[in-house]
Amino acid sequence: MDTNQLVQCVPNFSEGRDLEKIEKIVEAFRITEGVKLLDYSNDEDHNRLVVTVVGQPVKVKEAVVEAVKRAIELIDMNQHEGQHPRMGAVDVIPFIPIRNFSVEEAVELSKEVAKELYERFELPSFLYENSASAPHRMNLAKLRKGQFEGMAEKVKTDEFKPDFGQSIHPTAGIVAVGARMPLVAFNVILDTSNLEIANQIARNVRHINGGLRFVKAIGIDMEDRGITQVSMNLTNYTKTPLYRVFELIRIEAKRYGIAVVGSEVIGLVPMDALIGTAEYYLGIENFSTEQVLEKRLME
Amino acid sequence: MDTNQLVQCVPNFSEGRDLEKIEKIVEAFRITEGVKLLDYSNDEDHNRLVVTVVGQPVKVKEAVVEAVKRAIELIDMNQHEGQHPRMGAVDVIPFIPIRNFSVEEAVELSKEVAKELYERFELPSFLYENSASAPHRMNLAKLRKGQFEGMAEKVKTDEFKPDFGQSIHPTAGIVAVGARMPLVAFNVILDTSNLEIANQIARNVRHINGGLRFVKAIGIDMEDRGITQVSMNLTNYTKTPLYRVFELIRIEAKRYGIAVVGSEVIGLVPMDALIGTAEYYLGIENFSTEQVLEKRLME
Repeated sequence: MDTNQLVQCVPNFSEGRDLEKIEKIVEAFRITEGVKLLDYSNDEDHNRLVVTVVGQPVKVKEAVVEAVKRAIELIDMNQHEGQHPRMGAVDVIPFIPIRNFSVEEAVELSKEVAKELYERFELPSFLYENSASAPHRMNLAKLRKGQFEGMAEKVKTDEFKPDFGQSIHPTAGIVAVGARMPLVAFNVILDTSNLEIANQIARNVRHINGGLRFVKAIGIDMEDRGITQVSMNLTNYTKTPLYRVFELIRIEAKRYGIAVVGSEVIGLVPMDALIGTAEYYLGIENFSTEQVLEKRLME
Repeated sequence: MDTNQLVQCVPNFSEGRDLEKIEKIVEAFRITEGVKLLDYSNDEDHNRLVVTVVGQPVKVKEAVVEAVKRAIELIDMNQHEGQHPRMGAVDVIPFIPIRNFSVEEAVELSKEVAKELYERFELPSFLYENSASAPHRMNLAKLRKGQFEGMAEKVKTDEFKPDFGQSIHPTAGIVAVGARMPLVAFNVILDTSNLEIANQIARNVRHINGGLRFVKAIGIDMEDRGITQVSMNLTNYTKTPLYRVFELIRIEAKRYGIAVVGSEVIGLVPMDALIGTAEYYLGIENFSTEQVLEKRLME
């Protein structure tokens, strides 16, 4: 095993109110050596807990399985209500390759975890995103449609038969487990108050309407500043890099006589996404990320 | 003490040939917990060993002192010859702030080390760069002029009285100890074979001729490609960032009808230098390096 491998995991649990239960679930990540708890946040309205951890794959797996065990013991979906759609006590477990770990390896890891959750706790699962067993099962929203209350019936259909298990868990429902690339939340700010134009530019650059492969985009108002932005999720920054998105939006905005005034990166972003940007604009030849001092420190 | 502090040290030792001695010196860094040996390279022609380490300040200090102890025992400067100018068994010890550590703190650390080297081993020192006790003592080349052989006389002058000690060590000479910012070796490649133009552009952008404060630059041939480059050391990338240097060279090159075709970064570069570049070109608003996933992993 390459001890230098890193995988991120962002499991979502259906408990956002009871701090004692939340702490017990989070504790599973605190007590596991080789796993770093980067963040966790609970939302009372959503009644949901989102945990962000990173570490060696085998350790992350161990911690996740322990956290799921606790969640199954603590959460009864028959009693659960909240604004966020959900289908299980653990709603979704995405594995995200960070370093020396391929998407294929993350898919493998997600399948191992799903298998273990079923074998140990009889928790059924859908494999989703890159781990999905069919294209129509890739999208989380589609899998979750009908939510916990409708899931007992839904899993009886051929289309949505679980990848592990046959029927839902009586109190914990079903979980989606899968591998995906890191998301980068990237917004490009436009010098116009016209939301229709921002939306038109969003349509021009996003995948669904014929734009870049790994871009999801909408126009939104920045009301306090009287301007707008193209708000995006980049679903694979290695294949659709930030600079390409930024420059394409600049080109599209030009048609409307509008300037790009800047951008925003929301939340965490992998170092490589920004270093790739610097490499492009400076035209750096033969650069290796091994030349980045901090990268060396992490080895 | 903030255990999150990191300082880099790049001590140069006057032994580049005897692998057994080299290994004994390098071992001082291997055996110290909390210090990471990033690199070491010995050059037989220069008869010199350059070690790159990083770690917690107190640990780096401990390892450096041990390495110097070994170098004093192993190296006799009266027997030393090599192409690289040198004035001591340990020629220079620069401390470079990397994380949560200011230049002022690095200066303080350099003075502690210099003091300890004198008290424990009677090794005298010049404080140089940001640690210098006077402007004429900042530059290493000026301090080292006359080399080991001329140093016994030189230190008798008021101008070059050691900061610690009065006379040189009989076998180990004298060492320069100080704090400096990380150097970034950054070359901008020009679409011209005319070295005179490359040199003229170098003069236009470098500090000594009226250019940017933290740029040292010369023009050099890239003979295999029939073009030239402006080859630079950026001595403080936080105050003279890469993009500013790159864009200024582009503007200067334009006068000669010459295009910039790309750039090179040689050796290690701090992550912030590249992230700052990405921030500039994408005009990212309100960005914090705490948003970089890898930065979080190192905490």
